Amino acid sequence: MEKLRRIPTLADIQEAHEGIAHLIHRTPVLKCRSLNEIGGVQLFFKCENFQKVGAFKMRGAASAVLRLSEEERKRGVATHSSGNHAQALARAATAFGIKSYIVMPVNAPRIKMQATAGYGAEIIPCEATLASRESTLKAVQERTGAVFIHPYNDYDIIAGQATAAKELHDDTPELDAVLAPIGGGGLMSGTALITRYIAPKTKVYGAEPSAVDDALRSFRSGRIEVNTSTNTIADGLRTNLGEKTFDILYRHLDDIFTVSEEAIVEAMRLVWERMKIIIEPSCAVPLAAVLQNRQVFAGKRVGIILSGGNVDLEDLPFGKFLR
Amino acid sequence: MEKLRRIPTLADIQEAHEGIAHLIHRTPVLKCRSLNEIGGVQLFFKCENFQKVGAFKMRGAASAVLRLSEEERKRGVATHSSGNHAQALARAATAFGIKSYIVMPVNAPRIKMQATAGYGAEIIPCEATLASRESTLKAVQERTGAVFIHPYNDYDIIAGQATAAKELHDDTPELDAVLAPIGGGGLMSGTALITRYIAPKTKVYGAEPSAVDDALRSFRSGRIEVNTSTNTIADGLRTNLGEKTFDILYRHLDDIFTVSEEAIVEAMRLVWERMKIIIEPSCAVPLAAVLQNRQVFAGKRVGIILSGGNVDLEDLPFGKFLR
Repeated sequence: MEKLRRIPTLADIQEAHEGIAHLIHRTPVLKCRSLNEIGGVQLFFKCENFQKVGAFKMRGAASAVLRLSEEERKRGVATHSSGNHAQALARAATAFGIKSYIVMPVNAPRIKMQATAGYGAEIIPCEATLASRESTLKAVQERTGAVFIHPYNDYDIIAGQATAAKELHDDTPELDAVLAPIGGGGLMSGTALITRYIAPKTKVYGAEPSAVDDALRSFRSGRIEVNTSTNTIADGLRTNLGEKTFDILYRHLDDIFTVSEEAIVEAMRLVWERMKIIIEPSCAVPLAAVLQNRQVFAGKRVGIILSGGNVDLEDLPFGKFLR
Repeated sequence: MEKLRRIPTLADIQEAHEGIAHLIHRTPVLKCRSLNEIGGVQLFFKCENFQKVGAFKMRGAASAVLRLSEEERKRGVATHSSGNHAQALARAATAFGIKSYIVMPVNAPRIKMQATAGYGAEIIPCEATLASRESTLKAVQERTGAVFIHPYNDYDIIAGQATAAKELHDDTPELDAVLAPIGGGGLMSGTALITRYIAPKTKVYGAEPSAVDDALRSFRSGRIEVNTSTNTIADGLRTNLGEKTFDILYRHLDDIFTVSEEAIVEAMRLVWERMKIIIEPSCAVPLAAVLQNRQVFAGKRVGIILSGGNVDLEDLPFGKFLR
């Protein structure tokens, strides 16, 4: 195969889903009566916090590795990341029997470095600046010939992330709306595409923290706007959109909601307390949006992609706001 | 019906299970490959942390209320508790359309008082001493005629708690061993009984913190021994055995393991990090026992009852021990 060079079609997403099925968990869709009562809504949570490596990123990484040509597989894959994409790419590459090279800043949490190395990657340390990340990655590519896999601005990644919402729609017909968080836009654009293809009556909404509202501003202005701050607890959503993800979101989203830091922590707390499952702050943003926009969602069947469950248990946010 | 006055038979437990089915969740049995690799064992987790009120206590309370006579139902039920039994009894009573009176110490967490009242109970505050609890309960019973429902030393409660392991065996045949934590012994004695009845080849082990090892000492001495300290993070396991639960455990347990506070926190952390589900410290004690006794469990199929998921998110133990 070769990399997708167009917006993924329904057939592309179906092909990705079949190709990665043996590498991912078919995660459950959970319901919670007390959250439904609190929100005045019927919620369906697609639990990617239970996905391999603890996040939906496993889907995109597997999809991207799947489509490499034989010649590219011999060269291996490379990326720079301190987060879930690094672990997902390492795990996917190893599963296909190919090498992975992950550039990680020296200040990345040691546990993440160990986990990524444990999945079989070669870790190449760099300084904690974007310039150092990029120059180190370039050097690695020159040395190894490895194929760069972007964490979100890549049609194969988008096709892979779309498989989460595909499973949600397959398991939960006739949703009135589906929501996902927006960081770089990989999960959101995949969610929007597959929903348009297989559940065209379902509204598609994005959610992001007010503090990093680049997607909302981009959606309104029609061009990619960037964040001037990264001051949000939702550390997975600080990224700006890429041109591929922005293009899809701009065409296909119904709307974007923004929420306060306090609303994010409260939504996260509700999921932990009522559902007894662990979600990361980024993951609580769509629920916060539903709870703050009751007039939009009252009585509706609403799907939420719970994107991941990787949190630092020694630095939790629950004491930060008074109840 | 009337209260059971003998050790529950298999038929009693089956009858309890049918009678309470509409009041409880059929909780899932989860597996986790990375925990299996860490422990060198095949683990099957019965997730009572997802049970109504967040703990197995819902089963026993529903079972106890189920068996009340018509005349007793008119009088209502009463107990003293600051924990899960209070909420479970309130919820079960309300579900059967009867009144519940819960004596709670004034220093009980406000959120627990609110939750119990929210399930329909009348809360009667008392001083934070056992004497005040008991005298207040007695006064309530004299005023209302309500039937006292003991949290564990009660054959109907035991029959109800047994239904968790019954479902585990039904869903997971041929376990080599099953473990539960021991507090007052309601869950443990129910687990032991049903395992003897329907899976007689399966070993049954208890687990408790070394700091409150009353069950182990009782098991060895042949009489009820009491804790002189309550200094454990596993707050659900500080209770001493009752004569009914002790009698069953003494006859039917294969052994009891004790574990350190550090091992409890480490096991709890592993479940949170690897499974992304929330369990309370008491609930981590059996897993800690499995991980510390590898020679006993190597390669075996081991069932663990995860007893509950009610934790104070603002007072978590993960910073207490260095990794």
